[in-house]
Amino acid sequence: MTRAYVVGAGQTPFGAFPDESYRSLFQQAYEAALESTGDRVDAIDVDEAVIGTLGVGGRQLGLSGPAVTEHVGLDGVPCSRIENACAAGGFAVRQAIQAVESGMADLVVAGGYEMMTDMGSDRTKYWLGVSGETEWERLTGTTFAGVYAQMASAYLEQYDVDTEALSRVAVKNHANGAKNPNAHLGFTCSLEDAEGGAPVADPLSLYHCCPTSDGAAVVLIASEKFVSAYDGDAVAVLGVGAGSDSVGLADRDTYTAIPASERAARTAYERAKVTPEALDLAEVHDCFAIAELLAYEDLGFCDRGAAPSLLEAGETDLDGSLPVNPSGGLKSKGHPIGATGTGQVVEVFKQLTGRAGDRQVADATRALTHNVGGSGGAAVVHIFERGGRA
Amino acid sequence: MTRAYVVGAGQTPFGAFPDESYRSLFQQAYEAALESTGDRVDAIDVDEAVIGTLGVGGRQLGLSGPAVTEHVGLDGVPCSRIENACAAGGFAVRQAIQAVESGMADLVVAGGYEMMTDMGSDRTKYWLGVSGETEWERLTGTTFAGVYAQMASAYLEQYDVDTEALSRVAVKNHANGAKNPNAHLGFTCSLEDAEGGAPVADPLSLYHCCPTSDGAAVVLIASEKFVSAYDGDAVAVLGVGAGSDSVGLADRDTYTAIPASERAARTAYERAKVTPEALDLAEVHDCFAIAELLAYEDLGFCDRGAAPSLLEAGETDLDGSLPVNPSGGLKSKGHPIGATGTGQVVEVFKQLTGRAGDRQVADATRALTHNVGGSGGAAVVHIFERGGRA
Repeated sequence: MTRAYVVGAGQTPFGAFPDESYRSLFQQAYEAALESTGDRVDAIDVDEAVIGTLGVGGRQLGLSGPAVTEHVGLDGVPCSRIENACAAGGFAVRQAIQAVESGMADLVVAGGYEMMTDMGSDRTKYWLGVSGETEWERLTGTTFAGVYAQMASAYLEQYDVDTEALSRVAVKNHANGAKNPNAHLGFTCSLEDAEGGAPVADPLSLYHCCPTSDGAAVVLIASEKFVSAYDGDAVAVLGVGAGSDSVGLADRDTYTAIPASERAARTAYERAKVTPEALDLAEVHDCFAIAELLAYEDLGFCDRGAAPSLLEAGETDLDGSLPVNPSGGLKSKGHPIGATGTGQVVEVFKQLTGRAGDRQVADATRALTHNVGGSGGAAVVHIFERGGRA
Repeated sequence: MTRAYVVGAGQTPFGAFPDESYRSLFQQAYEAALESTGDRVDAIDVDEAVIGTLGVGGRQLGLSGPAVTEHVGLDGVPCSRIENACAAGGFAVRQAIQAVESGMADLVVAGGYEMMTDMGSDRTKYWLGVSGETEWERLTGTTFAGVYAQMASAYLEQYDVDTEALSRVAVKNHANGAKNPNAHLGFTCSLEDAEGGAPVADPLSLYHCCPTSDGAAVVLIASEKFVSAYDGDAVAVLGVGAGSDSVGLADRDTYTAIPASERAARTAYERAKVTPEALDLAEVHDCFAIAELLAYEDLGFCDRGAAPSLLEAGETDLDGSLPVNPSGGLKSKGHPIGATGTGQVVEVFKQLTGRAGDRQVADATRALTHNVGGSGGAAVVHIFERGGRA
């Protein structure tokens, strides 16, 4: 089996961009990805494109993959749109890796985009709700904050911790995001700020929730053959894993774990032949603060129930033993659905090639990304390694 | 590179099923696919699922892949939804083949489904329109019949043929569909019937347009490793190709060809190392009658402008030199968007394993499927061979 590599990665800032369109954002990210190769890669090299987007916002709803690739001059190139709610981007990267490892392509554009702020907040709420389970969540009026609040309630009760455990996620991720020029909410917050936010869905308050963002991110996935004749940076894909689960939270056996993430991580570690101890950093799916705590446990960073103490001890800080969300995460960097999972890989590419500026993790060799769809109906995990050429 | 095989395939009838849901239809197709293996394949063997659906109809809109796999007990299994408008199902099959050929999976469920008849015709028209180009097609009120009518007008004028060339597509495909118990419109029609249909979008009249259908279809794609230990029927995937193009018709250089189909076919023939002469049958994307004529030419069955005479000579009839759409095609079998491309592979599996009943093509060894998204924004072609074990 041929190994896959990341040879370029670029993104727009995440934020609210009323003067941009989904196409112009995708173009910026695509051009940034090409530029990141030192212009060693050109459109002519691209064999395939995979585009992750939820895209239920009144724009191009069918063929929303080709709609952006034609805009950047990639028309003709095989293009698919992939959707797995908030994990659309991560699954686009996975599919691009499959395309390369199958031998069908030597260079694949894995992209993601979303425009979320160009409609009223009520419509955004509805729009996001389409990824919730239909009959028992969406049609009963349960938002995603409401679903994750149920998980948070269960967790706080099961392990007898209070909301400070959630607020520390916000403090850490905002501290990191403040060092990321692409962050949507690039400001710091104190524990008092985070504890004092307006209620959203009890026990989640404002600082426990990520923003809705516009943005796009593009990653270039290449084959061994391509990389053997390439003199730019190449980050190896060590392992990939994915899992699914019932779409509705109420149908699952547990509220205090995301089984799809556990399965995805187990497969990725097995294929990469590494354990969590081998990681130098991770970008995890912190759409709500509780999700980052669950991720520590689902991904094997600590035992069940130990996430709050791992966080409080500073182990996941930028200078800790395993920095988590050096980009600022969904919480501070932002969460433009389809761009989130590809954006995580952009951060990893920067970190593993020494381009992460003020938030650079020292001596970063191995990194993990973790992207979740809905409240855990789908999850995908990737493990990458600097250099690592065959 | 490991080769991929089709080891099972099943579908629901295509039609209007007010008593079914998208989940119950998917379940029927999935169970039919397992049954088609003589119960040699079980859910426990499934490593991955890829689900094609347009799914813009008010049901589960995000995570609409996991929403059906959980219903049939496949929760946990990595699952992605793929969308490329009317080619969603064909691209789901292609992605499943990539998953197998990459070595990540040994048995993949490639499924597709759509519920289209549970809303008023105005909403269906709107819903389908989302796959048309947004600014210059959908928002100007142009339906898909309108877009294909422009292609038909251009073709009839360029080659100086009349609407009988379109009507003969309907006559042939209804004749085949009348032999298919799963066909939505399983009746025959005469040339006079087809010529006398009510106008839809000039020059297309009623019999030149496929119906909107409910339905689901599932194909089981397996690896060489799986097949080496398997004593059931296995149909080899010889070649796969795909292409994209501008979503809007007006942005293309030609109205009388679908360049994405040409590209997809060229790649598929190259990889399969065969020419069109090697084919014994083809299932092509005849959403409107003009599309079947263009397909003959895009897929290399005849020269440009020669499709009407190829058809009139009976070469593409069930007993012709290259039977096209023995299933009845989209025109008679039906067109439940996401299920159409997987349904084409179901027909090929039946034909190449001698299970096609009254419409069996004699001595069928090699077959092609051709699935188009929108008016040609995406296209995918597969070539299959009976037996063909490594």
